[in-house]
This record gives sequence, C-alpha cells and structure tokens, in this order.
Amino acid sequence: MSYALRMLETFPGTAVADRDALAACIDACFDCAQACTACADACLAEDGDLSSCIRLNLDCAAQTLATGQAVTRQTAANPQLLQTSLAACVDACTRCAEECEGHARHGMTHCAVCAEACRTCEQACNTLIAALFA
Amino acid sequence: MSYALRMLETFPGTAVADRDALAACIDACFDCAQACTACADACLAEDGDLSSCIRLNLDCAAQTLATGQAVTRQTAANPQLLQTSLAACVDACTRCAEECEGHARHGMTHCAVCAEACRTCEQACNTLIAALFA
Amino acid sequence: MSYALRMLETFPGTAVADRDALAACIDACFDCAQACTACADACLAEDGDLSSCIRLNLDCAAQTLATGQAVTRQTAANPQLLQTSLAACVDACTRCAEECEGHARHGMTHCAVCAEACRTCEQACNTLIAALFA
Amino acid sequence: MSYALRMLETFPGTAVADRDALAACIDACFDCAQACTACADACLAEDGDLSSCIRLNLDCAAQTLATGQAVTRQTAANPQLLQTSLAACVDACTRCAEECEGHARHGMTHCAVCAEACRTCEQACNTLIAALFA
Repeated sequence: MSYALRMLETFPGTAVADRDALAACIDACFDCAQACTACADACLAEDGDLSSCIRLNLDCAAQTLATGQAVTRQTAANPQLLQTSLAACVDACTRCAEECEGHARHGMTHCAVCAEACRTCEQACNTLIAALFA
Repeated sequence: MSYALRMLETFPGTAVADRDALAACIDACFDCAQACTACADACLAEDGDLSSCIRLNLDCAAQTLATGQAVTRQTAANPQLLQTSLAACVDACTRCAEECEGHARHGMTHCAVCAEACRTCEQACNTLIAALFA
Repeated sequence: MSYALRMLETFPGTAVADRDALAACIDACFDCAQACTACADACLAEDGDLSSCIRLNLDCAAQTLATGQAVTRQTAANPQLLQTSLAACVDACTRCAEECEGHARHGMTHCAVCAEACRTCEQACNTLIAALFA
Repeated sequence: MSYALRMLETFPGTAVADRDALAACIDACFDCAQACTACADACLAEDGDLSSCIRLNLDCAAQTLATGQAVTRQTAANPQLLQTSLAACVDACTRCAEECEGHARHGMTHCAVCAEACRTCEQACNTLIAALFA
C-alpha cells in the first residue's frame, strides 16, 4: 500500500473524495514529477536538440508537484479549486505525453517511460475530477 | 531592474510575449509564493484556528512557483499551455486573497500583506493572459 | 519496478552511482515529500497545537523534493554537491522523524506513518552517500 | 520594502535572527531560484552544449527554493537545521556561480546575470549563518 493511501487512511477528518481515487492521483502526480525530471535530464544527455521536450518536462514536473501536493491536503479542501489545479495538470501531462510519444517512436526509450507516467497521471486526474463531483 | 527582466533581456531568442508583462508576472508569482509561505507560518503562530487560511496559503505558494517557473521559460513556449497554468494561478490567488482579506479585517496584518501579494499576482497573470493573445 | 529505476535504466549515459542505490534514494525522497505534506495537513486537522511538527514536515517536504530531483539528474553529476544535498536531506528527515515519533507514541497514527517514510529516506540517503564514494 | 521584510515585521512572534539578515537571505534565495530557472532555459536556447550549466542551474533553483522557504518560516525554527539547509544552498550557489562565470567570460550575458544572483545568495546565506549564532 502506498504512503499516499496510508496517510489518507490515518487522516483525522473526512476526505474530500473517494480515497482510492485520491491516492491514485497523488501517486501518479509524484511519479510523473520524478519521471519528467529524469526525462529532462536524459534529453540533455542526448546528441540531438530536445529543447522542446525538456521544456515540457520541466513544466510538467512543476505542475504535477503543485497538484499532487494540493490533492494531498484534505483540510478545508475546495473541490472547485482542486478542479482548476487538476485541469492545469491534465493539460501539462497531455502535452508532455504527446511530445514524448513522438520521440519514443524514434527510439528514445526514456521518453517512452515518461510518456507512460504522463498518461497515467492524466487519467488519474480526470478520474479524480469525476469523483470530486460525483 | 529585477532579475526576471534582466534575464529576459539577455535571453538569446524571442520572448513569448511583451517582456514587461512577462517580468511583472514572474516577479509577482515569486513574491506571492514567498508571502504565502510566510503567511502560512504566521497563521501557525496565531492562537486561533487558521487552518483554512494555511491550506490556501500552501496551495497558492506551490501554484505560483509552478506558474512563475513556466512563465520564466521562453524556449518552445506554448501560449495555450501557459494560459492554463496562469488560470490555475489566478484561481489560487483569488481564493487565497479572499480568505486573507477576511482575516485582515480582524487585525491579522500578515494576512493583509499576503492578500496584497495575491491580488498583485492575480492582476499580473490576467494582464499576461491578455498579452499572450494580443 | 519503480519509474525511478526504469528512468535510470533508459538513461543514455553512465549513472553517477549504483542504480539500485540511486533508485531507492529517489523513491524514498519523493515518498517522504508526499508523506510530510500529508502529515502537515493531518496535524492541521488535529485539535492540539502541532505547529512544531507542521513546520518540520514542511521543511522536510521541500528538502526531500530538492534532493530527490538532484539525485534524479545523472548528467554532469558532481558527487560532492550531491553529498551536501543528501546531508541536508538526512538532517531534515532525522529531525522530522524524531518529532513525529514523539507524537506517534501519543496515538497520532499519521505521525507514525510519516516517521517511517522519514527514517526510510534517512537510510536511503546515507546508503547513497556511501555508494557515491565507494 | 520587500514582501519578505514586511512579512517578518508582521510575524506574531519572535524572529529566529536579525530581520534584515533574514529578509536579505530570503529575497536572495527567491531571486536566485528565478535567475537559475531562466538561465537553464536560456542555455537550452543556445547553440552549444551547456548541459553542465543547465544541470547546476536546476539543482540551484530547487535548493534555493527549499532553503528560501525554510528561512521564511519563523515558527519553531531550529538554528542547527537552518544551518544545514543554508550550507547546502551555499554549495549549490557557489558551484553554479563558478560554472556561469566561465560562460560569462565567453559572452553569455544570461550567465553573467545568473552568476550575480548566485553570488548574492551565497553571501546572504553566509551572513545569515553568522547571524544565527551571533
């Protein structure tokens, strides 16, 4: 069981949404932040110019951390503010995944792994948005 | 002249929007992140329960840093993705400012200063959104 | 297999240290950042004054993210600079763990989970420091 | 007057050190984080391989934010833990400044501005370390 789910289960109040949807989103955000940070670094070590990918990686890493921390917090949570943060996260993940998928087709295996992390995060954020207003 | 403007003036390419609008937004985002971090800490030191304010402070600090860093980057900038990030920042700043303004009316001077930083950031983000699509 | 390890295995260069030690440290840093963010929030929702714990949680969350990202990067890695970052991370984790362990003994289960994440991170950082200079 | 100093002046407790030394350090940390984020991006837009500089910029940006936020917090502040964080910040700033100064001598004006931000931060951190134990 992830730390995210264990922390939700020991939270001394009521969670803002279904705990499994929250934990899946939190884990996906932090995983995506790590993968994007690593992909930016791997792209730096490649021969070609991957500046567009690096830029999207860095944007996505920062946004997934901001959203992952906002979703972590259950105290005085506001579903509308969470939705705005999740929407920004979905946009960053979708664009970074599209960029990485293009490089993955040309043999960049780190971009293939990063794209998988971005798509998982995109889906987990969309699932949580639905759960927030269910 | 702020470091943000000096870094924009030495950027070896074309900026994504008007440099003054970019620099004003970047400076406002980093100032707001600092003020919100400080306000969360000051609220912790107060006697009453300011957990709603602390939570919004922490969300706003994280989002303004993510947006401030995204706006800082000029390489391969995408106006649509920036707009989504700026919209999330405006929402976080507006809600944090409203919360802090309420406490400021009851004598919390750190909340008054923080609300000013949030409102300045909200305006600078909205101005930049307009400049991106001018 | 974690994303951290998968990203290390697809990095197009030489890793700065043993990949398992790197991946364990990266995973522990990001897990600790999430747990500390959640513990600060859970402490906010408790009745008593847990401001010392919240403060250490927030410091530890920020430092583990900075160190976790530095350890993620393999390009032009400098063992001495990594060591300094890891030492700051160990100090933050140790102090946060000690604080949380005290509250865990008084029934705060979120502090017990957070202390476990901090101790795991402390050990993984110390193991990596040894591996960097092996 | 900076927001950092205004927030310190409205803090409802006792500051951990001299307010001017604290505010100078906080402002320098956030300025350095912004300049390093911008320098990493400007280096990406240059023709040559500046991967070592980009890597140090990203490390320094993350560490200055972690330290800048730790120094911002006055509640339950621990001088020893702050010193460890400040030492990590000084190391990151010194190494990034040295790297940027080398590129500045070859005409990279963004590196010259970034090096100035790093040196200012290095000095402000060292001054605060002295003030913490005065």
